[in-house]
Amino acid sequence: MVTSVGGTPRTRLRRLPELARTDIDTLYAVLDAALVAHVGIVDAHQPFVLPCAFARDGDRVLLHGSTGSRLFRWLAAGRPACVTVTLLDGVVYARSMFHSSMNYRSAMVLGRAAAVPDDDKEAALRVIGDHLMPGRWDSARPVTRKELAGTLVVALPLDEASVKVSCGLPEDEPEDAGWPAWAGVVPLSLSPGAPVSDDVLPVPPDVVAAWPT
Amino acid sequence: MVTSVGGTPRTRLRRLPELARTDIDTLYAVLDAALVAHVGIVDAHQPFVLPCAFARDGDRVLLHGSTGSRLFRWLAAGRPACVTVTLLDGVVYARSMFHSSMNYRSAMVLGRAAAVPDDDKEAALRVIGDHLMPGRWDSARPVTRKELAGTLVVALPLDEASVKVSCGLPEDEPEDAGWPAWAGVVPLSLSPGAPVSDDVLPVPPDVVAAWPT
Repeated sequence: MVTSVGGTPRTRLRRLPELARTDIDTLYAVLDAALVAHVGIVDAHQPFVLPCAFARDGDRVLLHGSTGSRLFRWLAAGRPACVTVTLLDGVVYARSMFHSSMNYRSAMVLGRAAAVPDDDKEAALRVIGDHLMPGRWDSARPVTRKELAGTLVVALPLDEASVKVSCGLPEDEPEDAGWPAWAGVVPLSLSPGAPVSDDVLPVPPDVVAAWPT
Repeated sequence: MVTSVGGTPRTRLRRLPELARTDIDTLYAVLDAALVAHVGIVDAHQPFVLPCAFARDGDRVLLHGSTGSRLFRWLAAGRPACVTVTLLDGVVYARSMFHSSMNYRSAMVLGRAAAVPDDDKEAALRVIGDHLMPGRWDSARPVTRKELAGTLVVALPLDEASVKVSCGLPEDEPEDAGWPAWAGVVPLSLSPGAPVSDDVLPVPPDVVAAWPT
């Protein structure tokens, strides 16, 4: 069970500690709002960072990939990993460039993943599917034994994690208050467009509900 | 000069090599379309992945942070690093979950960064500023010596990079063509909302032009 967020020497925020959040609900919310994580792993002293679809399942994150993927074999072998999720919420225009910045929510999870056992693999894949494509699992063609055998699912516990949230309007130096430049925030959000169909079937209600345009 | 993309053993795509792009223009285009990179670095065998604003400057990427940031001190010291940029372009609904996926463009740059010399720091910061806030540099309050002294700018050459592009409609197994589920793509894009002002000045033309809503 996750009892604290940002509470280890490796996850305590040294820079801008006022942006740190230490409640598990914010960690959950940031992870649940993202579709893609950036996964860090090390090989021969070189870090590699790869984008992966993911989902949170209680107090762990689930990632899936091919059994032929080096990243997933390394993850399943328990190499130290880092899973980082970032939601970009806006561009912050301060009156100085120095205080200009981005608004974002970001979560970082450190640790060693483990392969999800074969008996639990299909349920874990469903959790990922339900996150990325809510309501889709039951209408899609069922997963086959061969597909399951070719898929690795790994779980990384949320035991060691941190969350940063930068939000709100710019904070200028008091002496810059009169500088004659607009200051404010341009909000950014990942927005769905109109679905593009590859056949003549109408877009079903679950897809419309999952991605309201 | 960057002469090839995806051409080293560390950047050659082993999984789904058909997604690899090897032209420098695609590498440039992916980097130029993104505001945030995920930067990987290693400390005591543990990878850390952190989101950073960045910009491309010719055949290098520029990142800036506080001189008090451990990440930036490690980058400036030339530790092996990985800078990954991902643009999420859509959710791909195949008729099977197995072939469902995401559309995305992703670039990965490997190597060792170096600190930008003091004499070039302001010009490098301007490149980053121009990327994140086009047209803003000249109207913002000028950067001070103290702010420059407190900022580290590092450059990572594009010598060793790879680019992956996944786009288009889902590819189902031929035997799934008749499965009675909608198939297609829900496009996703990072979209600006209406600017929120922190004062009574009108939103200026450069901000409106940079973030058309």
